[in-house]
Amino acid sequence: MEKIRIGIYGYGNLGKGVETAIKNNPDMELVGVFTRRDPKTIKTINKETNVYGTDEVSNMKDKIDVMILCGGSATDLPVQTPEMASMFNVVDSFDNHANIPLHFNNVDKVAKENNKLALISCGWDPGLFSLNRALFEAVLPIGTNYVFYGRGLSQGHSDAVRRIKGVKKAVQYTVPYEESVRKVRNGEEPQFSSVREVMWRECFVVLDENADEKEVEKEIKEMPNYFEPYNTTVHFISEEEFDKDHVGMPHGGFVLRSGKTSNNNKQIAEFSLNLDSNPEFTSSVLVAYARAVYKLSKEGKNGAVTVLDIPVSYLTTKTKEELLKGTL
Amino acid sequence: MEKIRIGIYGYGNLGKGVETAIKNNPDMELVGVFTRRDPKTIKTINKETNVYGTDEVSNMKDKIDVMILCGGSATDLPVQTPEMASMFNVVDSFDNHANIPLHFNNVDKVAKENNKLALISCGWDPGLFSLNRALFEAVLPIGTNYVFYGRGLSQGHSDAVRRIKGVKKAVQYTVPYEESVRKVRNGEEPQFSSVREVMWRECFVVLDENADEKEVEKEIKEMPNYFEPYNTTVHFISEEEFDKDHVGMPHGGFVLRSGKTSNNNKQIAEFSLNLDSNPEFTSSVLVAYARAVYKLSKEGKNGAVTVLDIPVSYLTTKTKEELLKGTL
Repeated sequence: MEKIRIGIYGYGNLGKGVETAIKNNPDMELVGVFTRRDPKTIKTINKETNVYGTDEVSNMKDKIDVMILCGGSATDLPVQTPEMASMFNVVDSFDNHANIPLHFNNVDKVAKENNKLALISCGWDPGLFSLNRALFEAVLPIGTNYVFYGRGLSQGHSDAVRRIKGVKKAVQYTVPYEESVRKVRNGEEPQFSSVREVMWRECFVVLDENADEKEVEKEIKEMPNYFEPYNTTVHFISEEEFDKDHVGMPHGGFVLRSGKTSNNNKQIAEFSLNLDSNPEFTSSVLVAYARAVYKLSKEGKNGAVTVLDIPVSYLTTKTKEELLKGTL
Repeated sequence: MEKIRIGIYGYGNLGKGVETAIKNNPDMELVGVFTRRDPKTIKTINKETNVYGTDEVSNMKDKIDVMILCGGSATDLPVQTPEMASMFNVVDSFDNHANIPLHFNNVDKVAKENNKLALISCGWDPGLFSLNRALFEAVLPIGTNYVFYGRGLSQGHSDAVRRIKGVKKAVQYTVPYEESVRKVRNGEEPQFSSVREVMWRECFVVLDENADEKEVEKEIKEMPNYFEPYNTTVHFISEEEFDKDHVGMPHGGFVLRSGKTSNNNKQIAEFSLNLDSNPEFTSSVLVAYARAVYKLSKEGKNGAVTVLDIPVSYLTTKTKEELLKGTL
């Protein structure tokens, strides 16, 4: 069988996750990782993985079926996705919700001009959560959508705590309120007047020697936007405990629609994730969708698309007969 | 706006559900209900609904965009779906899993010959559960699938109890074992050696005068296939209590995949439903997919398809711009 040839552009947590995920998908092979750093300094998870400089990418046009873009949404992807879509079919995880329409149009133009297919904003939110939001709204047109995140690690909030003077190491978990979750799952359709009723924030902090617990805690809790609008708990722990218990990147949450089909009948649909590793799961989703991009591009489809445009049958390695017999 | 013109073929619980669902979807209109009974004897939910005999259906070829088939899977749909697919785009809820490949091929042939599009086996299982089984297997290739049904009314098992001598009214609920559910959601990947460990059956029975409780209970619990393989509880209640508490048709359940992306990282994805009315929800799904069938047939697609072949964007009334801006 001819394998689907994958490239990884950018080698942080997400790139490493894609490298790991490809090993779980025998119909795929990893051509290599592309990095802005000196390729010689990169230690890959699998020894045999090839590492190239990003300056070499234009020589690889015919050697890669789908390039998976693993850069950040703030500054990398707005530039990299259109650039790469001029040479390759691509998949990215652009997650700045407000800018998705702009990003879509930028990528669509280049991809169409070069007859490439570009899937943007893949992963779990945007991604699988988007898929379920759209599905739920369609099958339950009268109802209310809810999204809860956590319990999970927030990278942005952890960074914010780490920037405080006196903090050596820190991690922040977003935790939904069980009582709010219960009401939502029970179909009570609560209206939350602020985020404070939906989730709270839990920090685990290792202090520098001589740093003041009270001052750090105050600075965290009063930080505008990040912590001030929420109830926040701060635990000061030892470095040993931190290194033992707080190095994973768990996350999860759920999309739920609470609707009615007639006056008396409540109907609730929910899609939930409980993830030990957020980047590894996101990567695994990107890889499955790379398969779909490969198949659809073979059929001549080009331009920009999202997960909403892709039939689930394109994601699997199963034949139509296998799906009809075993999955449906 | 030109509305999508829907027909309902068969007018039981499902047909009534479709009639109700169309009211929730302003881009659709109900042309009428087709019944094998005398149309004059049919009392529809909405007074204005037209009722036709099935002998009139061939005169309506140009008046209906999608016919939703609401007959049973045992004997109705194997005949009706191919027959109707010779004249209309159709949606059915054929749910005899073992016969889906055969049904697909029968319908596919007729639909292709007549340039019609036919979506088979829609609803929630097969249907939305199938969609998530395929999705989960693709994004978590290493893992185990679980399906739990309930707490919900089993129509087949309720019928079986009602056929017992001395039983006036009866209803059976399928109930998952909480401890099994907990293990699965916790990622323990339990292996269940029999269905007895997964769910139990709860019956509420109204007896005829002079019927013997002990005999009826014994007959239920020892019924082969239906009850013998399960733990079953039987409650004898008054007719008043029955008519007050046991006339709804609740159901639900979940599909869950418990997987790993690397040695250490467990990842759990779940899709769950909690339904006050099984037929109304199933109908609501059929109606959303009828919209997709309409759109895809306009694009020239024909033959048989399943939910796995349909992008979610085809289910909604939202424009591409609205999906990019608000849903994704």
